[in-house]
Amino acid sequence: MATTLTGTSIIGSSRGSKTAETFRGFDPTTGNEIEPAFHSAAFEEVDAAASLAEEARLEYGNLVCKERAKFLRAIADNVEALGDALIERASLETSLPNARFVGERARTCGQLRIFADLLDEGSWVDARIDHAIPDREPIPKPDVRSMLRPIGPAAVFCASNFPLAYSVAGGDTASALAAGCPVIVNAHTAHPGTAELVGLAVSKAVKECEMPEGIFSLLFSSGYEIGQALVRHPAIKAVGFTGSRKGGRALMDIAAARPEPIPVYAEMSSVNPTFILPNAMKERGDAIVAGLHASVTGGVGQFCTKPGLVFVPGESDTFISNFRSQIAATNPAPLLTGGIQKTYNTANSHRAGEVTNTIANEETNLHGFSVNPSVFETTAIEFLNTPDLNEEIFGPTTLLIRSNHHEELLKIALSLEGQLTASVHGTEDDLREYADLIKILETKVGRLILNGFSTGVEVCPSMVHGGPYPATSDGRSTAVGTRAIRRFSRFVCYQNFPQNALPEELRDDNALNIWRIVDGEFKR
Amino acid sequence: MATTLTGTSIIGSSRGSKTAETFRGFDPTTGNEIEPAFHSAAFEEVDAAASLAEEARLEYGNLVCKERAKFLRAIADNVEALGDALIERASLETSLPNARFVGERARTCGQLRIFADLLDEGSWVDARIDHAIPDREPIPKPDVRSMLRPIGPAAVFCASNFPLAYSVAGGDTASALAAGCPVIVNAHTAHPGTAELVGLAVSKAVKECEMPEGIFSLLFSSGYEIGQALVRHPAIKAVGFTGSRKGGRALMDIAAARPEPIPVYAEMSSVNPTFILPNAMKERGDAIVAGLHASVTGGVGQFCTKPGLVFVPGESDTFISNFRSQIAATNPAPLLTGGIQKTYNTANSHRAGEVTNTIANEETNLHGFSVNPSVFETTAIEFLNTPDLNEEIFGPTTLLIRSNHHEELLKIALSLEGQLTASVHGTEDDLREYADLIKILETKVGRLILNGFSTGVEVCPSMVHGGPYPATSDGRSTAVGTRAIRRFSRFVCYQNFPQNALPEELRDDNALNIWRIVDGEFKR
Repeated sequence: MATTLTGTSIIGSSRGSKTAETFRGFDPTTGNEIEPAFHSAAFEEVDAAASLAEEARLEYGNLVCKERAKFLRAIADNVEALGDALIERASLETSLPNARFVGERARTCGQLRIFADLLDEGSWVDARIDHAIPDREPIPKPDVRSMLRPIGPAAVFCASNFPLAYSVAGGDTASALAAGCPVIVNAHTAHPGTAELVGLAVSKAVKECEMPEGIFSLLFSSGYEIGQALVRHPAIKAVGFTGSRKGGRALMDIAAARPEPIPVYAEMSSVNPTFILPNAMKERGDAIVAGLHASVTGGVGQFCTKPGLVFVPGESDTFISNFRSQIAATNPAPLLTGGIQKTYNTANSHRAGEVTNTIANEETNLHGFSVNPSVFETTAIEFLNTPDLNEEIFGPTTLLIRSNHHEELLKIALSLEGQLTASVHGTEDDLREYADLIKILETKVGRLILNGFSTGVEVCPSMVHGGPYPATSDGRSTAVGTRAIRRFSRFVCYQNFPQNALPEELRDDNALNIWRIVDGEFKR
Repeated sequence: MATTLTGTSIIGSSRGSKTAETFRGFDPTTGNEIEPAFHSAAFEEVDAAASLAEEARLEYGNLVCKERAKFLRAIADNVEALGDALIERASLETSLPNARFVGERARTCGQLRIFADLLDEGSWVDARIDHAIPDREPIPKPDVRSMLRPIGPAAVFCASNFPLAYSVAGGDTASALAAGCPVIVNAHTAHPGTAELVGLAVSKAVKECEMPEGIFSLLFSSGYEIGQALVRHPAIKAVGFTGSRKGGRALMDIAAARPEPIPVYAEMSSVNPTFILPNAMKERGDAIVAGLHASVTGGVGQFCTKPGLVFVPGESDTFISNFRSQIAATNPAPLLTGGIQKTYNTANSHRAGEVTNTIANEETNLHGFSVNPSVFETTAIEFLNTPDLNEEIFGPTTLLIRSNHHEELLKIALSLEGQLTASVHGTEDDLREYADLIKILETKVGRLILNGFSTGVEVCPSMVHGGPYPATSDGRSTAVGTRAIRRFSRFVCYQNFPQNALPEELRDDNALNIWRIVDGEFKR
């Protein structure tokens, strides 16, 4: 499927105007711009997309789940049908290897199909039925039933670091569409061509499945204003975002200040503290070094689950020296954007002034958005006295912290902000001894990992990719896994409805054969 | 059980200080103060309560569910053991009849026991297990498991209109304690004596069950500052509130502006639109008049689900005249506070200047906080042109709106703000003809009722007492029914944990015999 990029927004079944304000993607390896020019959406186009979404809301939200499942599968098929053109464009815009995007495409289409399966199975709506008891004393019990229904049109912001899996047809879009919500996507400037290709694949599915056009729009823009206008728009009822703490908090504040505040699901900032306990260090320090190096440098360190703080026992000289050697031997590589590069370099310089032991590759002949990997080292006391060291540096760097005191680790754990993950490497003895550490970490994170690394997020029903602020804006939610659909749903209750006026999921005959709670009992 | 009121806050196992700033409850019938004086908590006491809650968080949150269930049952037993003293004090402070509090006490203790049952059954945690597949290609699948865990210490604000069921040991407290969260209650100035009695019953249960003292505190105060300090406190991780839109929004704004924003569950403001369709009006207008009158005047109109907007066909002269007669024949009655009385009278006067047909009892010799019930009447066009008419007036009043046009009703429905409920009275023919109206209302409310009235909220697994803003701050949640526990919970994921390090709910043996999703299948 050959597709010519036009660089204009997708507004329902129309294309956006060729406004004068344009921007281009970049090749991070060279830092050069890539054709074509993309036209920033006009404010009227935000209104137009939002109005279409509002118009489509009832029809799309009232489709039976199986129809929405077909649509999600059509999107996945169409994304795959883009073939090598998609892989090559994504690779060109990010300098990440083709193989990465073959994998990320599989994950993206897999996510769409997992939500399609969830819709086909049907029990996700948490249907509950309490039958009437007309002769109950002192007052009759009414017939009450409820289930999850769509929250309304959603705005989705593409992630810089997941051009496929958390962008136009990524996890936020898939879960919002699955829930029955129209979606307006705000493309990321780092990979506009990838966005247009995927956007066209979604649009094609909208037509093929005869869906109302307003359920999908894709807006390009070079600045923040269009995205902010989208979050302010009264038709928008929820927001999905993956990006920086500053960007996420800005959207949270805008959403909270609306006349009608709306939920924002921003996945923002995490240093993913990793604790290597004494016996594990002794028994398998070498294996941990290798795993840690892969986790810190994979995707050029641009994963939200990258271990950014690593606590090691005081006597870890060999481990630290091995890890430093591995980092020193790692080639420079380009980050996704010039902005990320600048932030990385500035933060690294700042940190080098704060901690006593630092190492960075000394390669100075760097092209495009390339940076050297780095590793910093400090003591627990220095760490506790320097709150800055808790801040995420996006890119291939981490901070090693030596501590020999159990109580000190507990104090550090208590002082941590909310995190997506925490990891603990320990033998059975270690885990017994540090059970209190794990209990504290549990209150700080969305996911706790034993004897493994935080990067690599399995897409499955039990996954929690969330965590207390500032890891996310809403620590009750997950951005990955089937529970992500709940972010775009709310419960609606039907009292005293005749069978034929009820949604299928709530009728007595349970023709969909879904699991429900009926008069207090799980059954189907 | 005879209890002497001391008028001091409860801070864990201690009592608050006898600060100089005091206030008293009122007898609404006379408007006179009631003894004793209650001492406003000091800011240090907010800190003390929050620190105790923070300290208790891990121990209480890690108790097995059955232990928390015993504690909730002990609270219910102790509330009942307060006997007539509780009923009489609540009645004295509100001028609502004893019988109302016998019922409300039953509901309160019933709620505590429903959550205890939920904990004993155990499936509420939404446990999910995905087993490892070590030989999966291209990468191994890890062992991933997750379940709901407590969100952390919660602040609960007592409701003026439910001195028992939505106050010290009411639905918010019960669901937060059930979820494993310590609770700090901010008492309402309208019924401080009732609050102290119930607070002592909770404290007694804390001691009897050997719970950490910090899981419960109760703060008295005459102003807003103490409650606001509580919401700002870093130890507090969620807020439950029932009250006015202004009060709820103020807490939402404070919570959103915190360095770490936290969820606020504020149940605020709803006019509960009620639609009487043409055939229903013809067939059973008289029965609807009687039901509507009871719903508008029950509890002196001080229910959040009171029907505040009633849409009737144009040719409803008999209905309207009957309803007006019934309102005219209804005795004045005291509202809960002088503030509510003043707001009611001001809003009624304002409304009388806005709409063409009004009626209010002419009784002028009113004592204490008493007011006359009232009814207003207007046309659909006037209604659409006067946004003020959407505002809730708390008390025994409603607005009748005549409309003869299907399209006009749809337009009105689309213009409505978020609501706790909407009700539709219609015959089978009506419901078929107005299916589009019901679809629109579904997007605006938490609960839709057919051929019934919105007051009276059944406490059951399927109940949704929520709705989009401004009905509540968080339209995804419910304040009533077992799903209310989710408000104080968040998902935590455990990756690669050995069996003995997992919470019982996530172990392979499922010794608790709870329903779980294991490798994608519901089972137990």
